[in-house]
Amino acid sequence: METLDPWSSQIIDYEKLFKGFGIETMKIRDEKLKENKLFTRGIIFGHRDFYKWWNDFRNGKRVSILTGMMPSGPFHLGHKMVIDQLVWYQNLGISITFAIADIEARTVRKIDADKVKETVKSYLANAFALGLKPSQDIYVQSNRSNPYYRLADLLSSKMTFAEVEAIYGNMTPGKMISAFTQASDILHKQLPDYFGKHKILVPVGPDQDPHIRLSRDLADRIGFIKPSATYHGFARGLDGGKMSSSKPTSYIGLDEPIDVVKRKVANALTGGRNTLEEQKKLGGQPEKCIIFELYKYHFEDDDAKLSERERMCRAGEIMCGECKKQLIEKITKWLEKHQHKKDKEMARAEKFVEENIDYPF
Amino acid sequence: METLDPWSSQIIDYEKLFKGFGIETMKIRDEKLKENKLFTRGIIFGHRDFYKWWNDFRNGKRVSILTGMMPSGPFHLGHKMVIDQLVWYQNLGISITFAIADIEARTVRKIDADKVKETVKSYLANAFALGLKPSQDIYVQSNRSNPYYRLADLLSSKMTFAEVEAIYGNMTPGKMISAFTQASDILHKQLPDYFGKHKILVPVGPDQDPHIRLSRDLADRIGFIKPSATYHGFARGLDGGKMSSSKPTSYIGLDEPIDVVKRKVANALTGGRNTLEEQKKLGGQPEKCIIFELYKYHFEDDDAKLSERERMCRAGEIMCGECKKQLIEKITKWLEKHQHKKDKEMARAEKFVEENIDYPF
Repeated sequence: METLDPWSSQIIDYEKLFKGFGIETMKIRDEKLKENKLFTRGIIFGHRDFYKWWNDFRNGKRVSILTGMMPSGPFHLGHKMVIDQLVWYQNLGISITFAIADIEARTVRKIDADKVKETVKSYLANAFALGLKPSQDIYVQSNRSNPYYRLADLLSSKMTFAEVEAIYGNMTPGKMISAFTQASDILHKQLPDYFGKHKILVPVGPDQDPHIRLSRDLADRIGFIKPSATYHGFARGLDGGKMSSSKPTSYIGLDEPIDVVKRKVANALTGGRNTLEEQKKLGGQPEKCIIFELYKYHFEDDDAKLSERERMCRAGEIMCGECKKQLIEKITKWLEKHQHKKDKEMARAEKFVEENIDYPF
Repeated sequence: METLDPWSSQIIDYEKLFKGFGIETMKIRDEKLKENKLFTRGIIFGHRDFYKWWNDFRNGKRVSILTGMMPSGPFHLGHKMVIDQLVWYQNLGISITFAIADIEARTVRKIDADKVKETVKSYLANAFALGLKPSQDIYVQSNRSNPYYRLADLLSSKMTFAEVEAIYGNMTPGKMISAFTQASDILHKQLPDYFGKHKILVPVGPDQDPHIRLSRDLADRIGFIKPSATYHGFARGLDGGKMSSSKPTSYIGLDEPIDVVKRKVANALTGGRNTLEEQKKLGGQPEKCIIFELYKYHFEDDDAKLSERERMCRAGEIMCGECKKQLIEKITKWLEKHQHKKDKEMARAEKFVEENIDYPF
């Protein structure tokens, strides 16, 4: 049986996700969802049981959102997109649980203690600056409640080794511990110590689907409600390849000096042609263009303007240089403001780390 | 590589323990130890680094004792022997940590929630009645401190799957979780949140040696002091075979009605001969005799009297019927008194369970 490895940075085969793993295509069945460009632009492309969750929300029932981030590299635009989702739901009045998967970072990625602490500070300061309210339920895996650890431990009795292996592939002790810890992340808010049984939505990248499948199977076996999930597309790297935190030229980090970001955008892959002449004749190819993707995912909220940009590109009415220049202006403006906000949130983030993280090694 | 499975009830190959796994023969190198019949009678037969620990104790340095019990069957004389050890050390002024391995019972043995709760009550009431002070550090795995869980989780990063498998053999998710939980049981009191680094002695049966080896390896890798261990012999079953909680005729349970215990002792295997005549001529064989083992392990504190009994047996001066009758009298008297004490401790045990155990399933 084929497995998806949530701990590798493999390129996702979307065909396999839909056919092999039973993820459904996201269709917009409620006007309210059209207010979120991540839905209308197809960035959130798939789901499991999304509408069961959404209908409970629309019917005034208790629902919640949970997502997690592993503090394993610089906070970049991919992380921003997840926080953007949380903030949108938060503004609908939905309770947010934000799990920082530090145990995963320590045991699976083997990132050292100080590095994890620094990374958590950055993630939190950025998340707060992006609008996540510090009053939401934010925690690190290494410092949660007893019912949470108890649940993780007890869940391990509900799966065979072969089942875990079928979901995750090759195991290590750290991955095994991490898998049940993640299952508890996703399920523990259904404990009577928290909200009790209710529908939880977990917005994730498709690479995290193994955790969703594990949690859904386990939920079934302990009489909890299966968590719902949405899946968002991965932004590609600036060079058109895989975005990877080990390749700084592939991503835009929100902590980076603005000059560095400008240079990265200037060097990004576009959908342009070989010569200006050719491009004026044939038009550009926005579907291949990272610059266009950046507008679409992050820097152009206005659908009409985005469409106009796409039209102009295809018509050969705007060249890549101009398009990049405009984006650099937008990013510069946005990032200056963001970093200013982030700096103001840093004290709070540092306090959180000081109060919540203490590793023995 | 051969492994010992701490979760099976296999018969122990002592030769393998000493040669294959590096357990040392227990030699008495301090007069003080002669006050404990478990040492003088060779019941505690092996150790790892016992004297490193003992010398720290004798030199007035901080030491502690930790042991654990899995609440998986009736509390019997085998458990009593462990508590007897704890109480002896307690009376020397040594701090005792008593871990109740309820996560192991739930995940490895798959014992249901109510059964575990009832068993913990019985174990605690018996332990208190045997002299373990309730003021010692007594806990269930499912309700410990954050530093304890954090340590268990982080330790998983310090071992490969192959290493864990080499120690334990065939793994399940529950065994994997349980193994690192046990490692944290053994090591967590060295955390700065508790006593900090110090020497810990873990008195166990030889079947638990895998946990000791795992913990010693892990201690080394995180800069903790390797735990010391002693190994006590297993009492055989009343029928001379393996003692097993699934075979009630094989053990004496401390919660059993006294009439039942009497019957069990009356039916126990002895070292007697085929006929009385033969026995008077050849003498009995105390080394084969469960009755003699019961005197030696539990019901004859006086070494001189024990030796005299052995001599009389070998000389054919006492027959099995008489020997059993005397034992039944002793056990009856002891058990009546013990059960009375235990009943008085039950409220405290119930309170502990009520305050400490709460399973979601």
